[in-house]
Amino acid sequence: MLRPVKKISKVAGLLPGTLVHVGEKKTEHTKFTVIDYNETEFQEKVLKKIEECTSFKEKDSVSWINIDGIYEIDIIEKIGKQFNLHPLVLEDIVNTGQRPKIEDFDDYIFIVLKMISYNESKSEIESEQVSLILGPNFVISFQEREGDVFNSIRERIRNSKGRIRKMKSDYLAYTLLDAIIDNYFIIIEKLGERIEGMEDTLIKNSTPQTLQLIHSLKQDTIFLRKSVWPLREVINSLERSESKLIQESTDVFLRDIYDHTIQVIDSIETFRDTVSGMVDIYLSSVSNKMNEVMKLLTMIATIFIPITFVAGIYGMNFNPGVSAWNMPELNWKYGYLCALGLMLIIALLMIAYFKRRKWM
Amino acid sequence: MLRPVKKISKVAGLLPGTLVHVGEKKTEHTKFTVIDYNETEFQEKVLKKIEECTSFKEKDSVSWINIDGIYEIDIIEKIGKQFNLHPLVLEDIVNTGQRPKIEDFDDYIFIVLKMISYNESKSEIESEQVSLILGPNFVISFQEREGDVFNSIRERIRNSKGRIRKMKSDYLAYTLLDAIIDNYFIIIEKLGERIEGMEDTLIKNSTPQTLQLIHSLKQDTIFLRKSVWPLREVINSLERSESKLIQESTDVFLRDIYDHTIQVIDSIETFRDTVSGMVDIYLSSVSNKMNEVMKLLTMIATIFIPITFVAGIYGMNFNPGVSAWNMPELNWKYGYLCALGLMLIIALLMIAYFKRRKWM
Amino acid sequence: MLRPVKKISKVAGLLPGTLVHVGEKKTEHTKFTVIDYNETEFQEKVLKKIEECTSFKEKDSVSWINIDGIYEIDIIEKIGKQFNLHPLVLEDIVNTGQRPKIEDFDDYIFIVLKMISYNESKSEIESEQVSLILGPNFVISFQEREGDVFNSIRERIRNSKGRIRKMKSDYLAYTLLDAIIDNYFIIIEKLGERIEGMEDTLIKNSTPQTLQLIHSLKQDTIFLRKSVWPLREVINSLERSESKLIQESTDVFLRDIYDHTIQVIDSIETFRDTVSGMVDIYLSSVSNKMNEVMKLLTMIATIFIPITFVAGIYGMNFNPGVSAWNMPELNWKYGYLCALGLMLIIALLMIAYFKRRKWM
Amino acid sequence: MLRPVKKISKVAGLLPGTLVHVGEKKTEHTKFTVIDYNETEFQEKVLKKIEECTSFKEKDSVSWINIDGIYEIDIIEKIGKQFNLHPLVLEDIVNTGQRPKIEDFDDYIFIVLKMISYNESKSEIESEQVSLILGPNFVISFQEREGDVFNSIRERIRNSKGRIRKMKSDYLAYTLLDAIIDNYFIIIEKLGERIEGMEDTLIKNSTPQTLQLIHSLKQDTIFLRKSVWPLREVINSLERSESKLIQESTDVFLRDIYDHTIQVIDSIETFRDTVSGMVDIYLSSVSNKMNEVMKLLTMIATIFIPITFVAGIYGMNFNPGVSAWNMPELNWKYGYLCALGLMLIIALLMIAYFKRRKWM
Amino acid sequence: MLRPVKKISKVAGLLPGTLVHVGEKKTEHTKFTVIDYNETEFQEKVLKKIEECTSFKEKDSVSWINIDGIYEIDIIEKIGKQFNLHPLVLEDIVNTGQRPKIEDFDDYIFIVLKMISYNESKSEIESEQVSLILGPNFVISFQEREGDVFNSIRERIRNSKGRIRKMKSDYLAYTLLDAIIDNYFIIIEKLGERIEGMEDTLIKNSTPQTLQLIHSLKQDTIFLRKSVWPLREVINSLERSESKLIQESTDVFLRDIYDHTIQVIDSIETFRDTVSGMVDIYLSSVSNKMNEVMKLLTMIATIFIPITFVAGIYGMNFNPGVSAWNMPELNWKYGYLCALGLMLIIALLMIAYFKRRKWM
Repeated sequence: MLRPVKKISKVAGLLPGTLVHVGEKKTEHTKFTVIDYNETEFQEKVLKKIEECTSFKEKDSVSWINIDGIYEIDIIEKIGKQFNLHPLVLEDIVNTGQRPKIEDFDDYIFIVLKMISYNESKSEIESEQVSLILGPNFVISFQEREGDVFNSIRERIRNSKGRIRKMKSDYLAYTLLDAIIDNYFIIIEKLGERIEGMEDTLIKNSTPQTLQLIHSLKQDTIFLRKSVWPLREVINSLERSESKLIQESTDVFLRDIYDHTIQVIDSIETFRDTVSGMVDIYLSSVSNKMNEVMKLLTMIATIFIPITFVAGIYGMNFNPGVSAWNMPELNWKYGYLCALGLMLIIALLMIAYFKRRKWM
Repeated sequence: MLRPVKKISKVAGLLPGTLVHVGEKKTEHTKFTVIDYNETEFQEKVLKKIEECTSFKEKDSVSWINIDGIYEIDIIEKIGKQFNLHPLVLEDIVNTGQRPKIEDFDDYIFIVLKMISYNESKSEIESEQVSLILGPNFVISFQEREGDVFNSIRERIRNSKGRIRKMKSDYLAYTLLDAIIDNYFIIIEKLGERIEGMEDTLIKNSTPQTLQLIHSLKQDTIFLRKSVWPLREVINSLERSESKLIQESTDVFLRDIYDHTIQVIDSIETFRDTVSGMVDIYLSSVSNKMNEVMKLLTMIATIFIPITFVAGIYGMNFNPGVSAWNMPELNWKYGYLCALGLMLIIALLMIAYFKRRKWM
Repeated sequence: MLRPVKKISKVAGLLPGTLVHVGEKKTEHTKFTVIDYNETEFQEKVLKKIEECTSFKEKDSVSWINIDGIYEIDIIEKIGKQFNLHPLVLEDIVNTGQRPKIEDFDDYIFIVLKMISYNESKSEIESEQVSLILGPNFVISFQEREGDVFNSIRERIRNSKGRIRKMKSDYLAYTLLDAIIDNYFIIIEKLGERIEGMEDTLIKNSTPQTLQLIHSLKQDTIFLRKSVWPLREVINSLERSESKLIQESTDVFLRDIYDHTIQVIDSIETFRDTVSGMVDIYLSSVSNKMNEVMKLLTMIATIFIPITFVAGIYGMNFNPGVSAWNMPELNWKYGYLCALGLMLIIALLMIAYFKRRKWM
Repeated sequence: MLRPVKKISKVAGLLPGTLVHVGEKKTEHTKFTVIDYNETEFQEKVLKKIEECTSFKEKDSVSWINIDGIYEIDIIEKIGKQFNLHPLVLEDIVNTGQRPKIEDFDDYIFIVLKMISYNESKSEIESEQVSLILGPNFVISFQEREGDVFNSIRERIRNSKGRIRKMKSDYLAYTLLDAIIDNYFIIIEKLGERIEGMEDTLIKNSTPQTLQLIHSLKQDTIFLRKSVWPLREVINSLERSESKLIQESTDVFLRDIYDHTIQVIDSIETFRDTVSGMVDIYLSSVSNKMNEVMKLLTMIATIFIPITFVAGIYGMNFNPGVSAWNMPELNWKYGYLCALGLMLIIALLMIAYFKRRKWM
Repeated sequence: MLRPVKKISKVAGLLPGTLVHVGEKKTEHTKFTVIDYNETEFQEKVLKKIEECTSFKEKDSVSWINIDGIYEIDIIEKIGKQFNLHPLVLEDIVNTGQRPKIEDFDDYIFIVLKMISYNESKSEIESEQVSLILGPNFVISFQEREGDVFNSIRERIRNSKGRIRKMKSDYLAYTLLDAIIDNYFIIIEKLGERIEGMEDTLIKNSTPQTLQLIHSLKQDTIFLRKSVWPLREVINSLERSESKLIQESTDVFLRDIYDHTIQVIDSIETFRDTVSGMVDIYLSSVSNKMNEVMKLLTMIATIFIPITFVAGIYGMNFNPGVSAWNMPELNWKYGYLCALGLMLIIALLMIAYFKRRKWM
């Protein structure tokens, strides 16, 4: 979780606006796909050269240009020139350590956020930076690699399902955001399951590794929080934006994803509280175990130390021949039995004491 | 408490506005009841088909349409069409993971909140989502299942008791909110009792399970807090709303339930502080017990180890026959009694030491 | 401290504005006293029937109507009618679980707050709800029972001391608030003394009960905080109020009690910090004691276990008759003394080790 | 630290504006000194009677009237009358439990704050309340006793050094505030040294008293914080004040002491964090010591318990005469040496085990 | 980390605006370099006397005057006179305990912040105060010593690379700020590495020193936080500033470094959370070790105490000659073997118990 920050120092000392990819390289080639549609027409195309998308920019229909892979710097620069993007926007796109944010350049709105997915095989939360450029009749989406949560949107556009084909580019941007945020619920659910599982483990069978697992749960929660908190602000300012790119009818939808974001944040805060409480329970279960160990030691010692002492007494070698005062018990007829009986009585008294103290 | 979130992922990837019930299914059939009244007339009816309620919408009298069960999606959609509700409102109604919120569509106000009840048989707090649509002359209430806290309101309308028959739909919405929030006090009281009971348990007789009970108390407090905190904002914006649906005379009543909400929040915060302190007391009581165990062990060991040593000395087999220096005590007349006496003195000294240290 | 909340559920489900006393019943009968004054005249009277106070309402002089006891609901309702109070105000007066608040109805200002006193005999903080109605030429004060902190004010009015006889009803309301808040300082002082006493106890002689005392100190601090925090807001809005009932010249006095409230809050916050630190000190003193116990055990065991072993060696029964290798020491002339000497040396070495480790 | 609050209850129940000194009495007599100056003239005088200062009030030159001692109530009242001060201002001057605050009466500005000094002999932070009245051509400063941090200011006025002689009374008030706040840095430095010293102590040699010292450091930090936090607000509102008493050219100086205040607050917050961390380190060092003790006990016990058992075996009295199966070792030629060898091997194995566990 | 504060007290009591260097002296001589450029021309020069820079002030081209060393007070004063700087600005420049801040004097903007570098040889974070004066056509930068993070900027100006030669002085100031803030990422990275390393250490092999290392990590985090938090405010007000010195086109760049600052703060907050969690893990690992020690002790004691008791029994000297009841086992044929067998059985039972409890 601390690693994404690591590579950022690579750009320190460079010109502002110099494009250097920062972050893990997640794919080799950059891939362009365009979906262009209006209420009646629809076209889907994989581009070979980025120059081809110029034609879509001019058209009145809505174009969704999706770019997978942000590592070929010169290609990103070409896109920047074609769509007239500010150099700092390009810098933010290729630098994957961004915090979710929104910036309103009059001609287009730039949004950057995190698409989070759960990698089942590695049991890890994976995070990918998605940058959106919302222009008057186009949306450009930049992703770190192929594979995303947008397939159902593509399907809907293809089948002209729902209202999407009748709406402008701002609605398309909204559906993309909505898909990303809806996906957060899946992560929240996974995390919730891990937390519930952890609670069971805590109660039944905690080991020294348990605290590290709790710590890693906490780190995941902190990581999610860091990704989602600023999102709230992003969507709020999108909703309140007076940009001519956002139509009034879209506001109610933005308010809806704003509510979803708040719900995600709420769940994360609950998780944080729960995970904090777990540390207490863990430490307490550790000290309970210790207590049991101590009790056992005490009982063994408390029963045997006195009776061993009795045995020690009659192991002394005082000479009964010298005087009748020296260890007369040794020559009693039932001396041995008396001694054993004394030991038994001591042991029983001790056990009774433990029962009364509720230690047994 | 973490479970409600679980099913939310079902809707991820669907069209915004697609109705899918999210949450536990709590009833089979949807049931409609209408109470229609003005100052002079009164009518109560169980509807068979939802279309019947159209007539009430037109009438000048106040209509309260109550819907128990939100699982038959097509019925909810029909209601939406008849009353012209926004698709996102319908989505929120059937999705029971909502956070309390208010939304002002010019024609109607949409409020969603939690009705909380204490299930005595399961010793659990149960939560049900209630959605209210406040229109110019009607209120629609959606509940997850039959059974609610509104019976006294129905009685009052039937008997024309209080001012309710003279007032508009906004006053009806207020009474519904008031009934729900008043009910929170019962939960607060139950929780208060459990906390007091727990304090007694802590002092008298805490077991390893106690911490888990404290943890579950804490979870309940967090859950309540999550349900009530946003409610404050909801009622505050209802009070400040400039909607033409809210009459000025209702403001003082809304301020009153606002105060109640603050009181509930105050109590919950006090509970949180108290429950946090309990963890300290619990951990301390655990370590006090451990201390007692340790003290006992120490006393037993401290008394017997030295005197067992004395017994060990006189159990040695040095040959008195070789020289007069070898264990002459064994042949003393009162050797045995001296040895026993020595042991007694050691034991008494030890006990005196413990008394002085206040360990006994 | 958690109990006042308990009875609140009694009103859940009732009509808003229905008068039901909520809280502990602290007196039997309701008692009315009126003090009526202007710069030149003065009149004090115990009323038999509440209707008698109507005459005072009309008069130009300032009337202070004090009501002890809020349990005879019908009487409170009569007062409400005579002074034209809103039903919700009456509900708040008889419901003693209120949070301090202020409400401005154009004709009068309604203030509710807590009068706190320290019951020496029970060593408990006691709290009583005081409601004030500030009208154009009258102040009505409702108290739960007889006995209050207003005697010096009565004396001042009787003796025409200070500026009070020259001022309007808003100044009277201010003096009542001032008396209540000044009284908080006494509670703060008591609490400060208990905290100092507790600090001494902690250092000198803490027992398992100490933590419960700290917990109860903490509860008292939380309770005080809950009573005083909202007061700050109340007085602040009284000061900023644009009501025609508050004269400009009173503002500086209100600012003064505002400052006092802040001082009280400051002290409470300091107490909170101090009390939190005490838990650490307590837990540390417990573990210090445990350490001492452990050290003693270790020293006893460390000294005696080795020398007991030596005694065990020479208690073995190997037959010296079989060979010269079998326990020749037993037949040495000074064998016994050598063994004792060896034990002494071991013990002294151990003690030296402890001294070096600073354990003794 | 909790004591200043103690005496405050003395005034509860008195008339607002009644002058009663609250706090420790720090000097016997009240002493008046006046410094009167303008760009060309300078006069310094110790007054015998407070009435003499009237003449200075009229003059155009700037007069600084310093009053040491606030315990002769009648003198304070006379000053109040001469300079037309509000009774509540006088009350605040003699009541030394004030929180730093500023109040703008149109004719003068009243500022109260704490002058803090470190008493080397008692190793205690001492606090003295300073009240300033800034009028059109005078500044009155009230101190609890003689001795202050203003000597360098007096020197500068006498020697006409710096810009002070050319400026108005607001600049004089600023220099007084500046001197007091600069002095806070000395306290911060002392506290910083104590904290550093404590860190050394913690690492090298912590005793049960250490926690109490940490606790007292914490109390000092809380006390300083309480004195300085409100100061920030005071100076901020002085800077933003639109009073005609503050000239625009003074604003930049006020901003400067505002920055100093923020610096002091920053340092205090850092101290708070550091001191909190110390408690953890202390508790950990205590438990480390305990661990060492436990390890020693375990090693002694683990080595000697098994070999003592071996010795016990051969101390048994089974009769070798009855059968060859009964303790034949006793009659072996090298039986004794074998037994000793066995013990040695056991002990060495144990020590090897400890070495592997890194306990030795 | 606490030391920079230490020397601040040196200035307490001096005239405001008196120049006294506060802080560690980091270089001997003051060194002046000027870089003067416009789009077509470029000049770089090391000045001998500060008076030489007057000529640059007049010129239309952008001049960057860099001053290394702030300890020769008279030179700083000369610069102040030449550029008409306020005395308090000079005081802030030479006093290295400043908190990052910005002040807008109409003719110039004064910015002070911290340049942080990681000293590899000492493994310490080093901090140097940088003050910037942004004037209409010049930027003056004051540093505590030679060596900075500005070399790439110098290179860019020399080679006319990037847009810098075409822009005004505000863009130069921006690039300087950008270089300093970019450098923070390197520190963040170092800290991140140390924290990761610490996490490994914690899991594998924590010693009593580990907590001190965690404490020092925490102190570094607090120190960084203190340097960066106010920076956010500084850059925010620079961006929002309406000064004529800042051109509108620079705003987008300032917003960019604002985002960087937020990213740095975010990372620091994550570090804080992580480091706090480490204390828990450390304490838990300590108590886990203790648990192991206790378990070993308990097992040894539990196995050997009972069997040593058995050995003690048969070491008693009851006289079998007196009666057949006295220790008949001693004369059994297999008595010895029976006794040894009994001991073995006891030991095995104990071990089985431990296995079941999962202690072995």
